[in-house]
Amino acid sequence: MTVSLSAFSLVIEVLATIAFTVSGVFAALEKKLDVFGVTIIAFITALGGGTVRDVLIGATPVAWMKDVNLLLIILGTVAITLLLRKHMGNLHQTLLLFDALGLGLFTVVGIRKGLAIDLSPGICVALGTITGCFGGVVRDILLNKIPTLFQKEIYATACIAGGVLYLILIRPFGEETAEVTAIITISLIRIIAYRRKWTLPPL
Amino acid sequence: MTVSLSAFSLVIEVLATIAFTVSGVFAALEKKLDVFGVTIIAFITALGGGTVRDVLIGATPVAWMKDVNLLLIILGTVAITLLLRKHMGNLHQTLLLFDALGLGLFTVVGIRKGLAIDLSPGICVALGTITGCFGGVVRDILLNKIPTLFQKEIYATACIAGGVLYLILIRPFGEETAEVTAIITISLIRIIAYRRKWTLPPL
Amino acid sequence: MTVSLSAFSLVIEVLATIAFTVSGVFAALEKKLDVFGVTIIAFITALGGGTVRDVLIGATPVAWMKDVNLLLIILGTVAITLLLRKHMGNLHQTLLLFDALGLGLFTVVGIRKGLAIDLSPGICVALGTITGCFGGVVRDILLNKIPTLFQKEIYATACIAGGVLYLILIRPFGEETAEVTAIITISLIRIIAYRRKWTLPPL
Repeated sequence: MTVSLSAFSLVIEVLATIAFTVSGVFAALEKKLDVFGVTIIAFITALGGGTVRDVLIGATPVAWMKDVNLLLIILGTVAITLLLRKHMGNLHQTLLLFDALGLGLFTVVGIRKGLAIDLSPGICVALGTITGCFGGVVRDILLNKIPTLFQKEIYATACIAGGVLYLILIRPFGEETAEVTAIITISLIRIIAYRRKWTLPPL
Repeated sequence: MTVSLSAFSLVIEVLATIAFTVSGVFAALEKKLDVFGVTIIAFITALGGGTVRDVLIGATPVAWMKDVNLLLIILGTVAITLLLRKHMGNLHQTLLLFDALGLGLFTVVGIRKGLAIDLSPGICVALGTITGCFGGVVRDILLNKIPTLFQKEIYATACIAGGVLYLILIRPFGEETAEVTAIITISLIRIIAYRRKWTLPPL
Repeated sequence: MTVSLSAFSLVIEVLATIAFTVSGVFAALEKKLDVFGVTIIAFITALGGGTVRDVLIGATPVAWMKDVNLLLIILGTVAITLLLRKHMGNLHQTLLLFDALGLGLFTVVGIRKGLAIDLSPGICVALGTITGCFGGVVRDILLNKIPTLFQKEIYATACIAGGVLYLILIRPFGEETAEVTAIITISLIRIIAYRRKWTLPPL
């Protein structure tokens, strides 16, 4: 079971990294950056959340420095996205699915890293949410925008809901069940919120 | 004396956290963020200075990850501020006082953390100033503004003056006297500068 | 040879720090900051790249906290630049040379720090590029601009080219030759690109 779960996690991580990278490329293209700028923004979108998490808990060198394969996947995704960007409108639904699954997985990964160093449950949920969401926050800061996360999307809210569920389920049902349920919950909330244009109340 | 000093510090820390949180909420409201965005900006305003300090010196996991009570105080303050925000104009003077006391305390806390790991005096003053001021800097970056700190307020200047005084007084007069004098000095400079609209020369 | 190489490195580091500081001062002056704001932006331009590097690899307290002399050089440079700023147009060529040499040196220093903790070669080049370039990135974020680095300058590209060359040369020719060649290569690409207004293709 551990093998199949970690294989499952690995597949989701790769798909999520691809989806986050593509979203970074398109966000950078809107601001007319050059090839290098687009590439860096894509890296930061895909890796920023985990990087902020690792820096805050002191898990250094940060994770991406130990994983060249991930960097190559991102680089390949940037190249393909730039080449095929005019034909990618059709992939919108697919990318939304990957992005939502990735949000779920990254949140769970962040929570686990917090549990591993004995942080309290509420902090672990915060750490998971940072892992899922802060790539987009750093991307928006670099693109000189107020982070979308703070303005109108139910994005962090999905992470928090799924994160709390994970912590509730992990004792009685074990890690596998908790992980799968949390990832599905976060993904579903994200996708439904996106489709129905749910937002948090403005103030 | 130690007991009463640390009780004194604790009270100031709570009041300062409340003041910084309130200032974060109002800064976020100006930019029309949603509930989640306002909450995150409030957290970052209250905790950002200490977080940057801890990351720079490698004191990880950063301080707020070990203190759930502080997070609950911030969360409660955000809720109350949002509910009562139309009636809070009267609290302006009180909040300015809390904010000024907090600036003093945070500066002293930062300097102490630097002394504890044998950094040289000038670096300790820089670390104290970062602790006091960088919550507001990160807040302004996220709200897509040039940090107010760099433009027109005598804020960091107060930290530097009080920090130097702390280092001068600590040998001959001991930690308690140095701490109280530095906090009062920083608070007074901050309040008087605010009232009289003192600014540094533009260039 | 080691002595003369490290003396050579020290001289370049000082000149580079001066050049980066001056560029920070002028960038800050454009945005009408006060004296304190200008000083902080200058510090961040000079030290930001190394700080981001040290935080990512966990080399804390970050380097500048252990080197008061460097801080005094920056402070002196800020003062002199502010006093003489109307007469500094003539220094433009000199500063470009210092800046280009510094870009080369900082890149090599970053790569070496990566090699010292056994990061893989691709990551080391990334770390070198971050060391050379991210001071300017953080400066631009604080000044509320999209980083110039992402838009139109061959800056990171020079670091990547020189970094790869360093790694190719270090085994067969030794550290000294690799270092000097890499620094000269990066500086030359930077200066020629600047003069001929080379840019990466926009997208």
